[in-house]
Amino acid sequence: MPLVVQKFGGSSVADAASIQRVARRVVETRRAGNDVVVVVSAMGDTTDDLLDLAGQITDDAPAREMDILLTAGERISMSLLAMAIDAQGVKARSYTGQQAGLRTDTRYGKASIVGVVPERITRAVTEGQVAIVAGFQGVNELNDVTTLGRGGSDTTAVALAAALEADVCEIYTDVDGLFTADPRIVPSARRVQHITYEETLELAAHGAKILHLRAVEYARRYGVPLHVRSSFSNKEGTWVADTAATSAEEEAMEDPIISGVAHDRSQGKITVVGVPDVPGIAAKLFEVVAAADANIDMIVQNVSTQRTGLTDISFTLPEADGMATMKAIQGAAETLQYSEVRYDDQIGKLSLVGAGMRSHPGVSAKLFGALSAAGVNIEMISTSEIRISVVTRADHLDNAVRAVHTAFDLDTAESEAVVYGGSGR
Amino acid sequence: MPLVVQKFGGSSVADAASIQRVARRVVETRRAGNDVVVVVSAMGDTTDDLLDLAGQITDDAPAREMDILLTAGERISMSLLAMAIDAQGVKARSYTGQQAGLRTDTRYGKASIVGVVPERITRAVTEGQVAIVAGFQGVNELNDVTTLGRGGSDTTAVALAAALEADVCEIYTDVDGLFTADPRIVPSARRVQHITYEETLELAAHGAKILHLRAVEYARRYGVPLHVRSSFSNKEGTWVADTAATSAEEEAMEDPIISGVAHDRSQGKITVVGVPDVPGIAAKLFEVVAAADANIDMIVQNVSTQRTGLTDISFTLPEADGMATMKAIQGAAETLQYSEVRYDDQIGKLSLVGAGMRSHPGVSAKLFGALSAAGVNIEMISTSEIRISVVTRADHLDNAVRAVHTAFDLDTAESEAVVYGGSGR
Repeated sequence: MPLVVQKFGGSSVADAASIQRVARRVVETRRAGNDVVVVVSAMGDTTDDLLDLAGQITDDAPAREMDILLTAGERISMSLLAMAIDAQGVKARSYTGQQAGLRTDTRYGKASIVGVVPERITRAVTEGQVAIVAGFQGVNELNDVTTLGRGGSDTTAVALAAALEADVCEIYTDVDGLFTADPRIVPSARRVQHITYEETLELAAHGAKILHLRAVEYARRYGVPLHVRSSFSNKEGTWVADTAATSAEEEAMEDPIISGVAHDRSQGKITVVGVPDVPGIAAKLFEVVAAADANIDMIVQNVSTQRTGLTDISFTLPEADGMATMKAIQGAAETLQYSEVRYDDQIGKLSLVGAGMRSHPGVSAKLFGALSAAGVNIEMISTSEIRISVVTRADHLDNAVRAVHTAFDLDTAESEAVVYGGSGR
Repeated sequence: MPLVVQKFGGSSVADAASIQRVARRVVETRRAGNDVVVVVSAMGDTTDDLLDLAGQITDDAPAREMDILLTAGERISMSLLAMAIDAQGVKARSYTGQQAGLRTDTRYGKASIVGVVPERITRAVTEGQVAIVAGFQGVNELNDVTTLGRGGSDTTAVALAAALEADVCEIYTDVDGLFTADPRIVPSARRVQHITYEETLELAAHGAKILHLRAVEYARRYGVPLHVRSSFSNKEGTWVADTAATSAEEEAMEDPIISGVAHDRSQGKITVVGVPDVPGIAAKLFEVVAAADANIDMIVQNVSTQRTGLTDISFTLPEADGMATMKAIQGAAETLQYSEVRYDDQIGKLSLVGAGMRSHPGVSAKLFGALSAAGVNIEMISTSEIRISVVTRADHLDNAVRAVHTAFDLDTAESEAVVYGGSGR
């Protein structure tokens, strides 16, 4: 019997009616002749409510206690979902991360999975039950509960699918799959039918919010086929697997070279002006930045002029890390010997992703041409094998995304998308 | 260093401010030179909210899933309390029932403790930490969470105190201790300073709501001294121990023979009229009642008249069991051969409790005299070694309690009590 792992995020189980709807889908999947394991997040705003409660107590909660607090949310959703499935006549049991054998390291709040020993889940499935597993949580070697951090429930689902050798891991969300661009910006964006892990990673890393980076990395490592689809319809969603094409080579040949256009408005840019252009100065700067715990993304160093022997270095980073990083650089002014440091949070980033661009020359030229024709100025550029990212002014970003989407023939006559949003945790 | 177990009910941790207040008390106790283990219930209405959610899903939730759902409440309160104590500069860690070694049988929803192996709690205390333990919950041999049913958090506290050989188990509530009567009915009721387990059991079994029967039984079996006190003040409360007096014999001699007057408005009365007065008929009736799962309390059988050879049997039981039991008796009409069965939910029960009445004759006479003088008719009577209970009309109950309280010299000039309520779960 095929084994399907289904993951439902917080918005899919926001209230009793939603839980009943999810239960119906699980029951249908079971009755269609599948073994089913379900991974579920906390209901709707539960996690925010719990964070708010903790905030009323202290600004500096011990991470271990915070994890105990937050994991209460999945206990509620998973037991309610088991009740709902049971009430529809299919046996269901819920399991915590600990009971499901999701073993992690001890980094509370951002634990990594170190092993999955899903004995109880295997037994439940063998006995014909639907197993409901709490997403986002595991247990460490001290027998303490841990949380996996952002995207944790997706990661739980993929890790269980890998350990159970599931036939597919279905990630349910509130849209029909991955799109060639955010339909709120590009109404003519179309659903991507097939996409590789690699491209999905690039999209997720550069602003697309449907799938979490960690989960996709895990899926790629263990070859877990993902099916991203809507919990509101029965339509096919987006399949994420090793190769974009499913079977026929014809299909692969017809595949567009570009999978999609991601955008990201959450980055800021720091420019360090007038740095002595001597060996080791960049290393020193990024040591300071690393010590401030900032995840930097793009880096550009200007060609220095012979005359002054000075250069400028710009880099982008999440806005949330902006102030702390600025402080760190200002604190190291003596070492770094720059003349000025500036912070700019009015930037936008556009990323064009597609495995096809490897073998298709001229993609960058086309991209830059489209942006130029749309009157969008490019401030920074970075590229990978299958991605080109550019930084623009924030208020030019929407225009830029639309122009590029059209230039690469991604538009469809009519959009399938209704809403486009994050997938919860 | 003395070891104190402190138990706080749901009303003591109803919101962030209450949790901060409880944290201050724990910190004071710790700084006064005690090791401290805290047992905590779910916040205020959490349990009711969760039950309500389950009710929106199904009327017939599997008990295992219901226990997973309900135990989310203590995860929230215990982690928040640990954060609050930590924020006040004292190290604290929270532990689930499973982590604290509270092992139970597998009767979900009403599990019994089968063993307490508090290794982690002992270790935490040895390392100078305050250990916060989730009340009301344990783990069974399947590694599934169970709940202990009503009064569960009190029982958790007493069981831990016994296993840890604590010097005292403090039960915090919203009143100053046990009173000679409910101060809402008898404003002149006074706080009981010392009382035996036995008397406390009788009081708890017959309507007093401050301490739960199971917890008192557990405390008696293991000789755990209980101190019932207010979480709103630092006043001494009521000490429950083997003997009413603490040390001096003089004190014992001065102790009143009566500890208090309990009342109970939650009972109903079933009267089976015209039952053949032959051997075995009562046994048959109570077999039927037992099959309906009712907890019967008082039973009275009229003396039958020689002429008819028929008798009437009345018994009291919780109102909640009334309808189901009536149905069961009606269903067995053929076997029981009665002529009529009646249900009466307008009854009240008054119980006079005191170890002193063992050696003091005339207690019943005084009780009946006081009720008669107050114009209260007695419908049923039952007695134990240290208790006399009478059933009256419900609307006579308050008058009856006041009359008896006065007759036995329990009144004080001024009441200490502010509020009188249940102690949560």
